[in-house]
Amino acid sequence: MISQTTEYALRAVVYLAQHPSESWTTRQIAAATRVPAGYLSKVLQGLSRSGLINSQRGRHGGFQLTHDPENLTVLEVVNAVEPIRRIKMCPLKLGSHGEGLCPLHKCLDETIALVENSFQNTKVSQLLGRPDTPEPLCEFPYGNQFKGDQPIEPTQGET
Amino acid sequence: MISQTTEYALRAVVYLAQHPSESWTTRQIAAATRVPAGYLSKVLQGLSRSGLINSQRGRHGGFQLTHDPENLTVLEVVNAVEPIRRIKMCPLKLGSHGEGLCPLHKCLDETIALVENSFQNTKVSQLLGRPDTPEPLCEFPYGNQFKGDQPIEPTQGET
Repeated sequence: MISQTTEYALRAVVYLAQHPSESWTTRQIAAATRVPAGYLSKVLQGLSRSGLINSQRGRHGGFQLTHDPENLTVLEVVNAVEPIRRIKMCPLKLGSHGEGLCPLHKCLDETIALVENSFQNTKVSQLLGRPDTPEPLCEFPYGNQFKGDQPIEPTQGET
Repeated sequence: MISQTTEYALRAVVYLAQHPSESWTTRQIAAATRVPAGYLSKVLQGLSRSGLINSQRGRHGGFQLTHDPENLTVLEVVNAVEPIRRIKMCPLKLGSHGEGLCPLHKCLDETIALVENSFQNTKVSQLLGRPDTPEPLCEFPYGNQFKGDQPIEPTQGET
């Protein structure tokens, strides 16, 4: 129901929000979020196109979040990669329905609206920690990233 | 967010609930619900395996709903073809999370729960008509099904 792409995008954004003072390469984010690098690369392109992250080239290049997590909603992240589409017209293209929805599609649209509102009302900052839950991606805290036996340092000069 | 398969299954169930006194072939349901017959055939197999519809062979064979729409929830239809999966464990398989979810996956699970509850609390009978909405599949009322210029009669002896 929540696609792999959407979930991967949220993992990446949470990781970048947790580590705002550095730039991170695709390889580093992939290792930290446990997302295949090729898949992640496409997800990051989507986030980049929407302006939620930026990429800098060069030795200290990499990706950074462009928004304050306090002001960035989960909905903005979701819509950057796989926009939530409400049902505005009869999917059967029944002319007689006009602009109205039958009860079936009204029910589905109301359910999609629940998801949209839930994501709209949740800020990325709320995903970074709660007293009653483990920290997200908590086996990869800043300064303790490993890929195999090799520590992964920030800013490897690749994106 | 709501898959094509799920939506097609609901269209088919609504159609069968609207026309309970007859059996309907795949071809008839496909024409009425405007779903490609090959795709619909697989959807109907899923509904049949879950016992929500049954099929009878022979001249007057076809599909019928096995449940009273007053007692059948939208969730039962959805779960018959593409079960809603709650997030019960960390998708990153982080051992340190144990049975707890981090705020990211807790947020996603809570959103999935909203959808699950919404579908659980809606009966198929509620999809058949509301005073303020057009009837579902309303260009194909009982006794007025057409495929091209040919009226489609119920129970063509095929499923």
